[in-house]
Amino acid sequence: MVDLNVIASLCKRRGFIYQSSEIYGGLGSVWDYGPLGAELKNNVKNLWWRSMVYERDDVEGLDAAILMHPEVWKTSGHVTSFKDLLVDCKSCKKRFRYDLIKTKSCPECKGELTEPRPFNLMFKTFVGSVESEANEVFLRPETAQGIFVNFKNVLISSRKKLPFGVAQIGKAFRNEITTGNFIFRSREFEQMELEYFTDPEESDKWFEYWVNERFKWYQQYGIKKENIKLRRHEKEELAHYAKSCYDIEFLFPMGWSELEGIAHRTDFDLKQHAKISGKELSYYDELAKKDIIPHVIEPSGGVDRAFLAFLLDAYKEEKVRGEKRVVLSLHKYLAPVKVAVLPLLKNRPEIVEMAKAIYKDLRGDRKVQYDDAASIGRLYRRQDEIGTLYCVTVDVESLEDKKVTVRDRDTMKQDRIDVSMLKKYIEERTR
Amino acid sequence: MVDLNVIASLCKRRGFIYQSSEIYGGLGSVWDYGPLGAELKNNVKNLWWRSMVYERDDVEGLDAAILMHPEVWKTSGHVTSFKDLLVDCKSCKKRFRYDLIKTKSCPECKGELTEPRPFNLMFKTFVGSVESEANEVFLRPETAQGIFVNFKNVLISSRKKLPFGVAQIGKAFRNEITTGNFIFRSREFEQMELEYFTDPEESDKWFEYWVNERFKWYQQYGIKKENIKLRRHEKEELAHYAKSCYDIEFLFPMGWSELEGIAHRTDFDLKQHAKISGKELSYYDELAKKDIIPHVIEPSGGVDRAFLAFLLDAYKEEKVRGEKRVVLSLHKYLAPVKVAVLPLLKNRPEIVEMAKAIYKDLRGDRKVQYDDAASIGRLYRRQDEIGTLYCVTVDVESLEDKKVTVRDRDTMKQDRIDVSMLKKYIEERTR
Repeated sequence: MVDLNVIASLCKRRGFIYQSSEIYGGLGSVWDYGPLGAELKNNVKNLWWRSMVYERDDVEGLDAAILMHPEVWKTSGHVTSFKDLLVDCKSCKKRFRYDLIKTKSCPECKGELTEPRPFNLMFKTFVGSVESEANEVFLRPETAQGIFVNFKNVLISSRKKLPFGVAQIGKAFRNEITTGNFIFRSREFEQMELEYFTDPEESDKWFEYWVNERFKWYQQYGIKKENIKLRRHEKEELAHYAKSCYDIEFLFPMGWSELEGIAHRTDFDLKQHAKISGKELSYYDELAKKDIIPHVIEPSGGVDRAFLAFLLDAYKEEKVRGEKRVVLSLHKYLAPVKVAVLPLLKNRPEIVEMAKAIYKDLRGDRKVQYDDAASIGRLYRRQDEIGTLYCVTVDVESLEDKKVTVRDRDTMKQDRIDVSMLKKYIEERTR
Repeated sequence: MVDLNVIASLCKRRGFIYQSSEIYGGLGSVWDYGPLGAELKNNVKNLWWRSMVYERDDVEGLDAAILMHPEVWKTSGHVTSFKDLLVDCKSCKKRFRYDLIKTKSCPECKGELTEPRPFNLMFKTFVGSVESEANEVFLRPETAQGIFVNFKNVLISSRKKLPFGVAQIGKAFRNEITTGNFIFRSREFEQMELEYFTDPEESDKWFEYWVNERFKWYQQYGIKKENIKLRRHEKEELAHYAKSCYDIEFLFPMGWSELEGIAHRTDFDLKQHAKISGKELSYYDELAKKDIIPHVIEPSGGVDRAFLAFLLDAYKEEKVRGEKRVVLSLHKYLAPVKVAVLPLLKNRPEIVEMAKAIYKDLRGDRKVQYDDAASIGRLYRRQDEIGTLYCVTVDVESLEDKKVTVRDRDTMKQDRIDVSMLKKYIEERTR
């Protein structure tokens, strides 16, 4: 497995990921996505949305705000339970997560530690012009609650029948004390969550269905079979709302770690919100002629973790004719750049003109690059390193036979294609 | 022009927009986007990204984090200058924006007002486990600064030459005291911003170019000529960083208001950040053989405002054969649902089977609905009201001739189309 530093350095150099506010020394565990990173991240999100919303008839989308009424987080249990135990070192004053400390003394200076104290992981801020507890709101630590509080709204406006799901992608924030491993654990991150509402009696069946479905999804789009596994949570590990839970784990460079969790949340959230808000959050079952509180299955994935995992498993170093070739074999849906157009001679105006015309014709529906700033071997290497699916070169012969060379990233095979057929050729292979 | 309440009510009923945390009484001026709203909002963002990043060769994308180093906001001038003057009423204790008060006494109870005091509009929170000024960070009030601090990163990794732009879409937050008019002014909103870096001597030309370009863009995708205009800022109105500025204004139900601003930010931001961070933020001009600090033209649009404007101008009430027809004539790129498949007889298994097969074939690349829960007239009205481009009906004849009826939303004309040609027919008309 490739070293995380190799990936982080590629990400910085080629414009996938930069440290946030780097010119000011950075902001701890917050990251910015550069030109190629923004594309890859959008592609991960669009792919999930496509799988969840467009390809199914039982899921609707939602885009709830980051700021919510503070009562939501009391009801959900986050105000009381979303805490880490922290200890301070009495000598060096550093702070640590109690559950991660393996010795009785400070891991840095061996000083004496304080008793552990609970620390809530939610970021808080104040709405309105007065900073008081009455105006305190939180940055959501998960997107899920936005779905639960809108359960009835979505049910009424979409007229769905059970079982049905609500899918959402969005930012969440956790004031983590222990962070690190590049974008694996950051304070600002993005989730893609589905809350799937089912008849209580069918919930175990759907739980199993979603565990399998999500496990397959990652493999379908590029995660290697040997780098992904399912791990069932032990009873003691389960969150306060969960009846059972599976983690989909990926073999990151630092070891097996969570990529996505699939939790059986039962009717915990809907029941709680109904009780505290006083609003009825049930579903009328027309067959049984009664109101029921659906149970909820939640596949909850991290966009940034999926981004990192896809990148890690796509990264390959090969020897090609004695030279090292670095290639990102990203799935065609995920590759940030679909095509590069490369004029072989940048000083021949007819070649440049032809190459530019092809470039303009291909771009629009997809991200296409034009590059003439190096030799062809070097241009290919540049495109391989960012996972570009096809390189189109225009040479002297192209002026005669109106054909261009199309090189495939993975096989490195070259096809000679009629310019008039090129757009169709690319469209068929990138969709 | 349609009343804002009519649109807000349609939005709630059909699942475009819900009030945030509604079951808890709502959170002031924060909104959630429902199933159809999430689609429309994504379509607005994708359309902008397409126009800015995919269709041009001089713009790169970026996706910077919401949390940034606090020094960024000192340097940008937001800590000092991003303030409203507020007054309190000494009797009823209510708080108002000083610049909006037209009398010398409280607009609510005529009580005496305090002297105006400045109030910063940035939301603040604390990173790490200690709440102290040293750990204070802000939720970004604009996405622009994420681009400025990454100027050098993008320049190096993309190897761009002047002029070039960096485009970004993302959430921003402002702790507004005076809010309202539905999603027009909310505390959590989304921006789509381009920072276009140019040679200082060419900046006025590019300023003019972008004003025209953006003005055309809105009209190209559905805003009516008579409802949009340009307004040049007076000298006194200009923000501290701007040399000149145009607002693109739209005739909202409450009057002409800003849809997008195009500002000539000069070299203010790059110069300031270079000075305070100590990092060199310049561009090496190979022709002139010297470093220059580019000037910046900034077209800055609001996603939510564009959403609202497109919706308002798409809304039509018509009389069709004596009945009222409500239709959203949204541009084909913007319509949340592209196709609806409607079986004419839901009790005929062969018709249902054929309709479901068509539905499965069409969905995936786009959002498609299946609906059989009413008479055909009612089903059409439902789809018109949400702007669905095409309705495909399967009837008894379809079983014989393998043809379906495709109805166009705007003309209401019906075509009889071979099922084998349907996908192509739809693809050609929805892309």
